[in-house]
Amino acid sequence: MVIDIPHKKKARVVIIGGGFGGISLAKALRNSDVQVILVDKNNYHTFQPLLYQVATSVLEADSIAYPIRKIFANSNNIYFRQGEVDTVDEENKRIIIGKDELFYDYLVIATGATTNFFGNEGLTISAMPMKSVLEALDLRSMILQNFEKYLRNSNERKRQGMINFVIAGAGPTGVELAGALGELKTQVLPKDYKEIDFSKMNVYLVQSGNRVLPMLSEKSSAKAKKYLEDLRVEVVLNTRVLDFFGDYVQVSTGKDLIARTLIWTAGVRANPVEGLGAEALHKNGRILVDEYNEVKGKKDIFAVGDVACMITEEYPNGHPMVAPPAMQQGKHLAKNILSSIKGKQRKPFKYHDKGAMATIGKNKAVVELNKLKFGGFFAWFVWMVVHLMSLVGFRNKVITFFNWTKNYFNSDRGIRLIITPFDLYEERRKRRKELEKSKM
Amino acid sequence: MVIDIPHKKKARVVIIGGGFGGISLAKALRNSDVQVILVDKNNYHTFQPLLYQVATSVLEADSIAYPIRKIFANSNNIYFRQGEVDTVDEENKRIIIGKDELFYDYLVIATGATTNFFGNEGLTISAMPMKSVLEALDLRSMILQNFEKYLRNSNERKRQGMINFVIAGAGPTGVELAGALGELKTQVLPKDYKEIDFSKMNVYLVQSGNRVLPMLSEKSSAKAKKYLEDLRVEVVLNTRVLDFFGDYVQVSTGKDLIARTLIWTAGVRANPVEGLGAEALHKNGRILVDEYNEVKGKKDIFAVGDVACMITEEYPNGHPMVAPPAMQQGKHLAKNILSSIKGKQRKPFKYHDKGAMATIGKNKAVVELNKLKFGGFFAWFVWMVVHLMSLVGFRNKVITFFNWTKNYFNSDRGIRLIITPFDLYEERRKRRKELEKSKM
Repeated sequence: MVIDIPHKKKARVVIIGGGFGGISLAKALRNSDVQVILVDKNNYHTFQPLLYQVATSVLEADSIAYPIRKIFANSNNIYFRQGEVDTVDEENKRIIIGKDELFYDYLVIATGATTNFFGNEGLTISAMPMKSVLEALDLRSMILQNFEKYLRNSNERKRQGMINFVIAGAGPTGVELAGALGELKTQVLPKDYKEIDFSKMNVYLVQSGNRVLPMLSEKSSAKAKKYLEDLRVEVVLNTRVLDFFGDYVQVSTGKDLIARTLIWTAGVRANPVEGLGAEALHKNGRILVDEYNEVKGKKDIFAVGDVACMITEEYPNGHPMVAPPAMQQGKHLAKNILSSIKGKQRKPFKYHDKGAMATIGKNKAVVELNKLKFGGFFAWFVWMVVHLMSLVGFRNKVITFFNWTKNYFNSDRGIRLIITPFDLYEERRKRRKELEKSKM
Repeated sequence: MVIDIPHKKKARVVIIGGGFGGISLAKALRNSDVQVILVDKNNYHTFQPLLYQVATSVLEADSIAYPIRKIFANSNNIYFRQGEVDTVDEENKRIIIGKDELFYDYLVIATGATTNFFGNEGLTISAMPMKSVLEALDLRSMILQNFEKYLRNSNERKRQGMINFVIAGAGPTGVELAGALGELKTQVLPKDYKEIDFSKMNVYLVQSGNRVLPMLSEKSSAKAKKYLEDLRVEVVLNTRVLDFFGDYVQVSTGKDLIARTLIWTAGVRANPVEGLGAEALHKNGRILVDEYNEVKGKKDIFAVGDVACMITEEYPNGHPMVAPPAMQQGKHLAKNILSSIKGKQRKPFKYHDKGAMATIGKNKAVVELNKLKFGGFFAWFVWMVVHLMSLVGFRNKVITFFNWTKNYFNSDRGIRLIITPFDLYEERRKRRKELEKSKM
C-alpha cells in the first residue's frame, strides 16, 4: 500500500531513523509548514550514552528509551510509522518499506551506526555488541547469568571464564562499561554472592592504542586509567583483540585472555539505506554529504548524524560519530529545509564541539569542556546533570535520578533480572510438544 | 556435580520455587537453625498480581520482579541456586537439577501454577498466557505492535482484528486486564494515535458463568461489571471460548469475535515436579498434602501454595490458587519444620481468608474484607496501598508509587517500548549471513 497521510502543508519531509539526528530534526520542524513522517524500525528513541547502565543493572531499559509517539504527541504535523526501510527510489521520490511505499518531497537519512566486527567470524558470532536496547538487555542477562552458572560448575578453567570479562575498545563506551563492571566487582556483587571470591573476577579493558579515551587530553586519559585501576579494572594497552573462541580471547601480545564474555566496543560503521549507489558512500559506509547535509549527487536527499560524512578542512574524515554533531545537524537541516521552501538561501553547517566527558564510577569522571579540563567528584556531578537533563521525558528523569541517588548511597544495583527471551520460545515449544504427546 | 554448601546447622531445607509460598517460607527460616537452599529457574521473585500492569504499559518489569539474592542478602543461612528441577528422588533424599544433584533433609515443593489450555490446540499455539514476566512483556509488545501494524495495513477485516482484544476468563486477572485495556482505549492511546478512530477498538471480556469475579458477592460483581462498561469493555457473559484461529475467536454462542489477540486467563493448573508418583497427585496436577502440608505418602517432602492441595471440610477442592494461602502456608510450614527439629509437636494449618479485591481502573475497584464490602475511590485506594506495601523492595515501592501517581494525574502510560526479542536473533542471523556473503 501507499503510506499516505493527507496534508495541506507545503511539503512532506520523510525522516528515516529516530536517533539523535532524526529526533532533533523532527523537533525543529514541529508545528511548521511541512508535514513530517518519521520512520523507525523501533517505536522508541534510544538514549545510547546510557546503554551501558542498562547492561550493568543500574537503569531499566524504559528509563533510557522513550516512545517516539509520545515525543510528538502535541505536534500537529509530525507522524510516525514503524517499519524497516528497504531502499530509496530517487527517481520516483519514494522509499520502500516492506510491501509499502512512502513518497517524499525531502528525504533525510538518519539511520546512525552499527557495530563493526571487521568481518571477523569469531567476533561476529560470539562477541557481544552494545548498540541497541535489546543488545544491552541481553548483555545484562549474560553478565548475571555467568555468576549463577559459576556456582553450578566444578571445572576451574570454565569457572574462571565465567567471571572474567573482556571489553575491547577504550572509547567512552568501553571505559564507562569497564568502570561499571569494576564497581560490580568491588562494591555490588560481593554482597549477594557471598560464596564467590571476587578477587578472582577480572575485568580487562583492551585498547590498541597507548591510552584510554584517546579523544581527550593525555592528562585526562591518565586520570581515567587511574580511576579504572582503582576499581580493579586491568587496562591492557597497545594490544589488539585478534579473535574470540567462545571461552578465550586471542590478543596481539600472544597472552590469551580467558573469558566467556567479550564486549565489543572497538568498531562502528555507518548503517546507510540501500539504493543510494556506491558513489554516494564513503569508507565505513558513511554517506557523503555537502555542507548542507545534502547527499553528494542527489537532490532533496539528505543525511545527518553518524551515517553522514561531511568532509571539511577541520574534519577531513567527517565529524566524530557521537550525539552532538547529529543533534546539531538535525536542527540546522530543519532551518535549511524551511528556508528552501520559502525560497531563501540555505546556510552551511558548522559543528560546535563543546567537549567530551566520561564517567568511570562514583565520584570518578573526566570532563573536557573547551579549555576547561577537570576530574573527580565535580566532573562526575557535571556528567550526571548533563545526562539527566538530556534524557527525554519527565518520568525518565525522575526515575533515573532516584536510581542514581539510591545507588550512590547504597552501592546497590536494583535491576538484576535475568531475562532470556529464548526461554519464552522454549516454553512454547514445550507446550506444543506436550500437546502432541497428549494426542498420541 | 553435587551442589553442596557445607554448614553447621541442624538440617538442610531445600525449597523449589521462589514464588509467594517459597519466599514466605524462606523468610520465616531466616537466621534459624536450618540451612535453606532455594532453587528457582528464574533469579527473581515475580509479584504476579501486578503482571497485568506490565502487560498494559503501566509498570516496568523490574518494578514487580525482585532478585531473590537481594531478598536474602542479609541472611546467613539462605542460599540460592538458579536451575530447573527435573525430578525428586525420594529414596536418596535428593533432587536432580540437570546434571547436578542436591541432597535435602526437608524438601518443600512450591512450584506454583501455570496456564491451562485444556489441551486445545488453537489456544495452546496462539492464545497469550500471562503468568510470567516474559509473557507479560511479550503481551505488552504485542498489544502495542497491533496499533503500529494497523496503520500500515489497508485490509479492513485484518485491521479490525488488530485493534480488537479478547480476554477469556473474568477472574481478578481477566477483569483487571480488561479494565486496563479499557483505559488504554478511552484515555491513553487516542492521544498518541490521532489517526485511529478508537470507537472501532473493542475489548471483549468473555466469561462462561453469569457474572464477573464469581468469588465475590453478586453486588460486587455487578459493580465491577458497571466499571468495566464505563471503560467501554464489552462483558460477554454465559459464553465459553471454544477455539482460536489466529484472527478470530470461536465462542459458544456462535457469534465469532474478530481479534488477533486472545489473552487466556480462564484456566490454571498446578505445575508439580516429576518423581512424586501418580498417587500423590490430585486433579489439575495439584499435589495432595495433609494438614501439615506434607505430601501424601511421603516423608519429609512438603508442598505449599498453588501446587499443593489440602482438602479440608471448608475447602473440599483445596485452597484457592492465589497468593494468601501460599504465603500463610509458607510461614506456617517454617514453624512446623523448626518444631520437628526441636522434637516438638507440629500444628495443623488453618487458612485465614482475609477477602479479595480487584481494581478495574482509576477510582474504580471492589474490595471485600470479611464482612466489609465497598467500591469506588476508597476501594481503589485500599487496593493501591495493599499492593504497594506488598511489593518487595524499597526501590520498587517508590518507583511504582511514582508511576501510579503520574498516571493518575496524566492518564498516561510511560512504558511503551515494543521489544521483540526475536529481532535480536534475526539481527544475529543477518550478521552471519552478511559475513558469509563477504567471504564469497
